[in-house]
Amino acid sequence: MASLPIISPHGHTDPSWFAGNAPFGNAAELLLHPDHYLFRMLYSQGISLDALGIGNPGADPRESWRLFARNYHLFRGTPSRMWMDWVFADAFGFDVQFSGETSDLYYDRITEALATDAFRPRALFDRFGIEVIATTESPLDTLGHHAAIRAANASGEWSGRVITAYRPDPVVDPEFGGFRDNLARFSELSGEDAFSYAGYLAAHRNRRACFEAMGATSTDHGHPTAATADLSDAEAEALFARVTGPAVSPADAELFRAHMLTVMAGMSLDDGLVMQIHPGAFRNHNAWLFEHYGRDKGADIPTGTDYVHALRPLLGRYGNEAGLTVILFTLDETSYARELAPLAGHYPALKLGPAWWFHDSPEGMRRFRSQTTETAGFYNTVGFNDDTRAFLSIPARHDVARRIDCGFLAGLVAEHRMAEWEAAELAIDLSYNLAKAAYKL
Amino acid sequence: MASLPIISPHGHTDPSWFAGNAPFGNAAELLLHPDHYLFRMLYSQGISLDALGIGNPGADPRESWRLFARNYHLFRGTPSRMWMDWVFADAFGFDVQFSGETSDLYYDRITEALATDAFRPRALFDRFGIEVIATTESPLDTLGHHAAIRAANASGEWSGRVITAYRPDPVVDPEFGGFRDNLARFSELSGEDAFSYAGYLAAHRNRRACFEAMGATSTDHGHPTAATADLSDAEAEALFARVTGPAVSPADAELFRAHMLTVMAGMSLDDGLVMQIHPGAFRNHNAWLFEHYGRDKGADIPTGTDYVHALRPLLGRYGNEAGLTVILFTLDETSYARELAPLAGHYPALKLGPAWWFHDSPEGMRRFRSQTTETAGFYNTVGFNDDTRAFLSIPARHDVARRIDCGFLAGLVAEHRMAEWEAAELAIDLSYNLAKAAYKL
Amino acid sequence: MASLPIISPHGHTDPSWFAGNAPFGNAAELLLHPDHYLFRMLYSQGISLDALGIGNPGADPRESWRLFARNYHLFRGTPSRMWMDWVFADAFGFDVQFSGETSDLYYDRITEALATDAFRPRALFDRFGIEVIATTESPLDTLGHHAAIRAANASGEWSGRVITAYRPDPVVDPEFGGFRDNLARFSELSGEDAFSYAGYLAAHRNRRACFEAMGATSTDHGHPTAATADLSDAEAEALFARVTGPAVSPADAELFRAHMLTVMAGMSLDDGLVMQIHPGAFRNHNAWLFEHYGRDKGADIPTGTDYVHALRPLLGRYGNEAGLTVILFTLDETSYARELAPLAGHYPALKLGPAWWFHDSPEGMRRFRSQTTETAGFYNTVGFNDDTRAFLSIPARHDVARRIDCGFLAGLVAEHRMAEWEAAELAIDLSYNLAKAAYKL
Repeated sequence: MASLPIISPHGHTDPSWFAGNAPFGNAAELLLHPDHYLFRMLYSQGISLDALGIGNPGADPRESWRLFARNYHLFRGTPSRMWMDWVFADAFGFDVQFSGETSDLYYDRITEALATDAFRPRALFDRFGIEVIATTESPLDTLGHHAAIRAANASGEWSGRVITAYRPDPVVDPEFGGFRDNLARFSELSGEDAFSYAGYLAAHRNRRACFEAMGATSTDHGHPTAATADLSDAEAEALFARVTGPAVSPADAELFRAHMLTVMAGMSLDDGLVMQIHPGAFRNHNAWLFEHYGRDKGADIPTGTDYVHALRPLLGRYGNEAGLTVILFTLDETSYARELAPLAGHYPALKLGPAWWFHDSPEGMRRFRSQTTETAGFYNTVGFNDDTRAFLSIPARHDVARRIDCGFLAGLVAEHRMAEWEAAELAIDLSYNLAKAAYKL
Repeated sequence: MASLPIISPHGHTDPSWFAGNAPFGNAAELLLHPDHYLFRMLYSQGISLDALGIGNPGADPRESWRLFARNYHLFRGTPSRMWMDWVFADAFGFDVQFSGETSDLYYDRITEALATDAFRPRALFDRFGIEVIATTESPLDTLGHHAAIRAANASGEWSGRVITAYRPDPVVDPEFGGFRDNLARFSELSGEDAFSYAGYLAAHRNRRACFEAMGATSTDHGHPTAATADLSDAEAEALFARVTGPAVSPADAELFRAHMLTVMAGMSLDDGLVMQIHPGAFRNHNAWLFEHYGRDKGADIPTGTDYVHALRPLLGRYGNEAGLTVILFTLDETSYARELAPLAGHYPALKLGPAWWFHDSPEGMRRFRSQTTETAGFYNTVGFNDDTRAFLSIPARHDVARRIDCGFLAGLVAEHRMAEWEAAELAIDLSYNLAKAAYKL
Repeated sequence: MASLPIISPHGHTDPSWFAGNAPFGNAAELLLHPDHYLFRMLYSQGISLDALGIGNPGADPRESWRLFARNYHLFRGTPSRMWMDWVFADAFGFDVQFSGETSDLYYDRITEALATDAFRPRALFDRFGIEVIATTESPLDTLGHHAAIRAANASGEWSGRVITAYRPDPVVDPEFGGFRDNLARFSELSGEDAFSYAGYLAAHRNRRACFEAMGATSTDHGHPTAATADLSDAEAEALFARVTGPAVSPADAELFRAHMLTVMAGMSLDDGLVMQIHPGAFRNHNAWLFEHYGRDKGADIPTGTDYVHALRPLLGRYGNEAGLTVILFTLDETSYARELAPLAGHYPALKLGPAWWFHDSPEGMRRFRSQTTETAGFYNTVGFNDDTRAFLSIPARHDVARRIDCGFLAGLVAEHRMAEWEAAELAIDLSYNLAKAAYKL
């Protein structure tokens, strides 16, 4: 299984890497600073973000790296440890353990390697065996980097397949920072009047088509809850007027997000984009940290998430459509056996995304399989996705997922619940075929 | 353990099978059409219920069966796969795998077998080693089939022990379809005026006695939640007047169901019937499917279920009665360790039913044991029940349960937490003795 | 690992044992009567508390003991069985199994042993290898026994280290029995006017300092929920006036408890006491039992517990303080992976206490490690504590915890997720160093 190509249908790598193919910087800048799994753990043990160089460009990257190295024991038993060990050993060829003592050796060798052609983004992409990778952009993105990549593809300069995905939260969530400004920009880019409800819907259709032209096969929706609603046109128009007005109530914001999930499902039925719903994170839980360091600093915390009642309006409208694919993710594992597997094991439109975020880990994956398979089977799941901006860790993440799935299958074979040839077939499905099919890649 | 007789204290087989002993029909009609585990999975992958012959008597059963056969891989890793494999191999003697290629072979051989005497209901009952099986009837059932079976027992024609169980939802739940008509029929059958509260209670007592005369040792209550209430007579009478009136509010319906659980517990203390509570399913989640295909089509979805607050009124009234047995089931596994095991490990009246419905599976049973045993022990559980209308799968289901329980016990022995002789004793208790004792069989 | 000294930073042994060093009484009085794990299980199977001698001093202890012995099979698969087996074999040297047949043999030999010097409290403390043990006292306790122990330490009479912990529930919870009387006594002991808000806070500071003088390094807070609040001084004063008035509303009581958690965190930042929060038990669920037998009779039942929203006020005020340690416990395992590990893996002030109460068991500990480690790591946990008043079981409990943790580490080594030397280092950390460091012992 280790040598199968990588299908990465959902992630957050930066398309400018593959468009410009500029070398990455130093070890800290590439591996530590963008990885909130790493610095949240260090921060939890009293290490300041400033010292790690987070939100503090003046910090010496070598010193930040030393701090990380001296505290590498904190990651024992975590997936970060597995991913980093892979990056160190397989991507950079280290054969001594990472620690305070080897910190500088690591820093220097990694930083030197990054300056070479073999470590430029496109070379790594090719070396990692990535067949296709999706990035995630807002409807306000002009997709210039993607156009550049496609030009490089067309000219024969590079054959790597990099596609975008439509993530409309900035123009769907009335509580998103700068929502009205976003709508202005949305109007501009789409040539529609996004301040009227009809124009707003037309703008979505327009931008979705532009995204499809840049390879998109999916949309992605990161809502606080899984709430959906199915309003009449008149109700929706009135609500739209309120949420685009000067003061938006939390209830209206939630209802608008809920309604838009159903609207987006309808558009997906029309244009074929696969729809992903990622609910259940309490974003920026740490107010002080948010104020001083901003978003995505490791302070998003999962909350209990209901799906059974929340999804019923959307499913009542589109759940029986076999031509639609809605992929559900969760941060609340209690929903695996109780809600998600029973829903996905019934509704034709539903599939289950892999163990996500904090649960993208050996034990998390095992819980996912052991709690969903008996009710939803394997074929209502969609394979693995890495969901990461840590580019170098992508092969490691897929490797972990393949190992865990193969271990799970081996258990079924050992208990005589499946023949060995079936497990072999499934191993390829889970690692490769299902993602390709579900995301239409 | 494999050869112990089967005690099946809770299930949904049709008593007319054992009363009339008519041959079963074809493979699709016997094995596919009544099994919502099977067709919900097929439906989830975009296969239409019509093509499977569900709600579509005109479908060719051989074609429906082929559709099932070609998609048998969907069941990999599910308990349905284990049960069907057992039925195919052990009940029908197949030694080639079921698949699209062997579909017709299977269809023909099964359909032929079903026409023989060896596959009539009573012959299978005897061959399966069933010591006793309970069916489930509504208070509106006249129990004619059960009377016929008892007559066959008395005449020496057949010795199989088939008993009924009292499932009063149609006359307890004001939101049940035809509730007022049901009460009219309830009056008729009981000779009491079920439209007065006193007459209504008397009608229950009357029908419970009739059920006991047909062997019943238990009642069964399938409520949306585990809510109980303990109203004064005056409050109960006023509520009864409201819920039997023309318009019933959801709150009144819930309160009446809640109150009736406590009333039923009181009657159980009087007449000795064991009480089973099965809460937590959102019934008919898929409105379109319900409208077109009706109930029990695989669209019931579990929801989060509270027991600690919900059961307190009933337990406050009867929880300390060692002479009462209330068996709790759940679809919400989060309650195993948090609520159900602590409650059952304290209240004399409470016991825990086995892993239920979606959790009647190897992993589901393992979670049940590993999450309840340390707090409630084994002796506050009641052994296995199959809860099925898929008659041929009954031995397979008990076989799976015995294997999983033996595996769990073996783990405790291997860790030196129990002596081997104790595990051997417990294996028989979990497979046979506990069900017999808890259900007074 | 077995021979490492025992660090017991949180428990409920009686300091008078170590102060007076009087012999324990008979087998039933020492081992059965104070252990609600034991008698709750016996009660759940219909055995009366009176017959067990609970709340019934007239019961013959030998007969109560026989009842326990005859029903010892009820504990198969429970941690009580493991602890009792250790006590019988290791503390008392039995080599025949405990049962109805050996009941009197056990009763006599244990009761005789307890009369000897080798089984006096201090001798057992020394024999058990306890390096330090914390008891738990209310602010209304004069700590006389602790003073006596310290005098014995100072005089060289005994070197055992026994410290107290500050458990202010009786003066923090307006719904605690005798709250106003408690405040009167609180005033008396502290020399402050605890009926004014300023005086009340000063009384806490005064008593905390007294506790520190008796070795306390921690406080302990057993609230119904994890709710915290951060009121302004004016709001807090007004609330204090209401909750010390004649009629307290449940909402005010909850808000006051919530506010006081934040106040206590602030005091901990000042005086260095480690703060423990133990939420989520529905106390005295069985009203009849409470009325007839009182508190702590095995009728406390866990409930679903939210941490993400509940702790935000406290964390917003103090969560980023690396100098503060707040240790969280839970009875709701669904929060391990979803809430507690993500919170502890981010906030510098937070750490996770071990698997608690019903979850202080092999499977409970395994779930704790497998659900928290990947997100919070090992170093945001604080080792084991026994939390018990069953003194003789303390070595057994630590032994179980060490075995389970070593088994978990062995699994990581076997899967090549950690080097063997790292596991060996961690085993000592989890058994000894982390508790010592987290509790400042």
